[in-house]
Amino acid sequence: MEKAERSNPNGLTVKKADNFSEWYTQALLKSDFIDYSDVSGCIVFLPAAYYAWQKITYAVDAEFKKDGIEDVYFPLFIPERLLLKEKEHFEGFVPEVAWVTEAGNSKLDEKLAIRPTSETIMYRNFSKRIRSWRDLPLRFNQWNNVVRWEFKHPTPFIRSREFLWNEGHTVYATEADSKAERDVILGIYNKILKEYLAIPGIIGIKSRKETFPGALASYSIEHILPDGWAIQGPDFHLDGQNFSKAFEIKFLDKEEKQQFAWQNTYAITTRELGVMVATHGDDKGLVIPPKLANIQVIIIPILKKDGSAAVLEYARSIAEQLKAEYRVRVDDREGYSPGFKFNEWELKGIPIRIELGPRELENNKVILVRRDTGEKQETDAASVNRSVKDLVEHIQENLYSRAEHAMKAMIHMADDYSDLKDILSEKKGIVSAPWCGNVTCEDKIKEETGAKITNIPLDQKKINGKCVYCGKQAVERANFAKSY
Amino acid sequence: MEKAERSNPNGLTVKKADNFSEWYTQALLKSDFIDYSDVSGCIVFLPAAYYAWQKITYAVDAEFKKDGIEDVYFPLFIPERLLLKEKEHFEGFVPEVAWVTEAGNSKLDEKLAIRPTSETIMYRNFSKRIRSWRDLPLRFNQWNNVVRWEFKHPTPFIRSREFLWNEGHTVYATEADSKAERDVILGIYNKILKEYLAIPGIIGIKSRKETFPGALASYSIEHILPDGWAIQGPDFHLDGQNFSKAFEIKFLDKEEKQQFAWQNTYAITTRELGVMVATHGDDKGLVIPPKLANIQVIIIPILKKDGSAAVLEYARSIAEQLKAEYRVRVDDREGYSPGFKFNEWELKGIPIRIELGPRELENNKVILVRRDTGEKQETDAASVNRSVKDLVEHIQENLYSRAEHAMKAMIHMADDYSDLKDILSEKKGIVSAPWCGNVTCEDKIKEETGAKITNIPLDQKKINGKCVYCGKQAVERANFAKSY
Repeated sequence: MEKAERSNPNGLTVKKADNFSEWYTQALLKSDFIDYSDVSGCIVFLPAAYYAWQKITYAVDAEFKKDGIEDVYFPLFIPERLLLKEKEHFEGFVPEVAWVTEAGNSKLDEKLAIRPTSETIMYRNFSKRIRSWRDLPLRFNQWNNVVRWEFKHPTPFIRSREFLWNEGHTVYATEADSKAERDVILGIYNKILKEYLAIPGIIGIKSRKETFPGALASYSIEHILPDGWAIQGPDFHLDGQNFSKAFEIKFLDKEEKQQFAWQNTYAITTRELGVMVATHGDDKGLVIPPKLANIQVIIIPILKKDGSAAVLEYARSIAEQLKAEYRVRVDDREGYSPGFKFNEWELKGIPIRIELGPRELENNKVILVRRDTGEKQETDAASVNRSVKDLVEHIQENLYSRAEHAMKAMIHMADDYSDLKDILSEKKGIVSAPWCGNVTCEDKIKEETGAKITNIPLDQKKINGKCVYCGKQAVERANFAKSY
Repeated sequence: MEKAERSNPNGLTVKKADNFSEWYTQALLKSDFIDYSDVSGCIVFLPAAYYAWQKITYAVDAEFKKDGIEDVYFPLFIPERLLLKEKEHFEGFVPEVAWVTEAGNSKLDEKLAIRPTSETIMYRNFSKRIRSWRDLPLRFNQWNNVVRWEFKHPTPFIRSREFLWNEGHTVYATEADSKAERDVILGIYNKILKEYLAIPGIIGIKSRKETFPGALASYSIEHILPDGWAIQGPDFHLDGQNFSKAFEIKFLDKEEKQQFAWQNTYAITTRELGVMVATHGDDKGLVIPPKLANIQVIIIPILKKDGSAAVLEYARSIAEQLKAEYRVRVDDREGYSPGFKFNEWELKGIPIRIELGPRELENNKVILVRRDTGEKQETDAASVNRSVKDLVEHIQENLYSRAEHAMKAMIHMADDYSDLKDILSEKKGIVSAPWCGNVTCEDKIKEETGAKITNIPLDQKKINGKCVYCGKQAVERANFAKSY
């Protein structure tokens, strides 16, 4: 950190509501959550950021394991000829592939892609290992880094050239079996988003146009950022038999007949860290949900000239008491005022602050301050663990319900095209509108308003309206929005 | 798996003692622990392998966190100019660097190295974030993949072009502080090696010649494989001020004077999985230590024509009873004989097998079989959890003590050069010999015997002998061996 920032750590110079994009960058950099690197589009995950991601991976992975999914690790490199095998998939990724062409001082015989996703290298193996219906289902997952060399303006977490994710790759004997996995996986993602990141989302199917290259159908959880733009979260793809035919993933069924397998893929990425920061942060800085915070409780002793040793000792005893259950730190730095420290830890988004000075020591009390609401409460030292436990729950619930409320306020209904256009130009967020299912209307709406279909919510009733664009019979309500 | 293997899953066609290298490859491939990929030197970690690695990372990471080390994630790519900054380091790695030169259809302006290790990209950031003694120590770690394009013959885990590891990078205000970290870190690695992998090692300092490029001193834990060749395990490097000078990692000390910082680096890699397999495996296949096994207990019901439903139900009830504490699976596949199944799970190295048939059902007993010794015992169904708990401990202890015994038997003492040469040509393992500390003797011994210094054990008394090569005063006993 520069000296100038040190003297004013609460250095956000813009308000979130005034300039979201500048606020977002400042919040990430000044809180020491990330740093830029020397390679454009690649960021450094500093301890608070990586801690949150690691917790997410542990939580998702535990759910995956409970459901029988097994982790594997496939190589970073994919020979060009393998990427070429499934045409649609290849065309979807090749404009963004980073290529290794040299090793040491030698030119390689064949260019190697850095994996943008691992279908092609994994499915080579699948075709060798799957022989019989007994080998199915095969449910593999990996946690790794992938590279997509986007040429658009990079935004930390939101649009990064290297990112971290899980990629689930599963193989089933029948279409019905493969389809049954959808709700399990989207359910796991949604649960972790709610219980860890405190982020709501809209579960739906992608339009044909927005479907993953090579998939039969794609599903997503979509978020809305505070600037009103939609952003795609975790996704799930029914790949059908496209890859199994390209890679010859065949098996003998119980009747000894050869069949092509049915496949799925799914992912949650570090993009969610960006959504988390954008959703919960405020003009003071980040607000990290308690389960994901590397420091959950920061204790700030208020040191006066007299008796500061006793107050410091009191602070340490409270920390000692909390540390079996919570991640806690005492900010005992000399030469910084309590106010300076309050600002700094608020900027970093630490969920709970404990203040204690000579008065609290005398009364055997501590003051607890919530980062999300700023509310203060006084508690007996003896019951501080209980109070922190309650606060952790309340903060988590409050962050989620606040975010859900904000999201709902940004979902608008339109039943004709002029409404849709008015809302898109005047309000923030998503417009739910009846649609005929035809790509021509989808294209026209995009062209005329800049809004694409984020997804078509699964949770909707049969409708009986007219397509907002062409006026023909609508088959469903689709969500239209400007989207990251 | 091919049909041919299916009919003979215990398909190791060589004995470990007869042809270690062929045995090693067969054990890894036939047990479904790994597969080769389409890129030479890059392997696929299948579920059992990745499970073991994940457990190791969780265990090491928990120890790191307890000690105050924080995880971060820095980008995969390092611009060429950054790699160039520290000359010795650059020269050490550049012959093995994989270079990205193209993205999509464009040529990049600057070549990007795939990280062979992350000093150079991390230390750019360190120089920005460290300003004052208050910022120290800084203790960062990351879990990631690295690429070293070795041109030697690749061997799974042992010599791979892509591997997984932790890289710890820490910064201290003083040389003494940086040195104090050494025993902490080597202690953590050694503890995990013992308690999880059941692998012993020899802790020592590297000779100057074998020191990490750019470091003041390097320390390692060395293993001996069953073929008698040494192999380096986890390492720790005192980097001194070489990097802090190259990257300007400076701080103002308490007297407001500018100082260069003192740095350390350390790593444990997926190579340990290779050492684990090589150490514990036998002519039947792998032997996975219980804490690292993705399946700890395999239950094989012995199904006779009559009453097989009841036996199957019994098997499932035992599994149910075990599953809160252990990772357990019932092999209820039809069409395979118990003997076939025994062989298959032995090949995969599952630590404990439970057999049960009509007789066991009738008596409410089960038979437990240890993978490491083949010993059988009968237990009441009611106390099966207790028996498994004991077995898990005994197997872990036995694997370690067996490996330690084997290692000690391969460490030989030599006090003159002809002894050293005789032992190296006739026996397997490491030769401990007095050495003057001079690289000329080290070089000569290497040239004449093929043995290098693996390390110089830290745990040794002051000696008063003569250098085994030049006959001058020896300063210490060094370990000489042929080494991977």
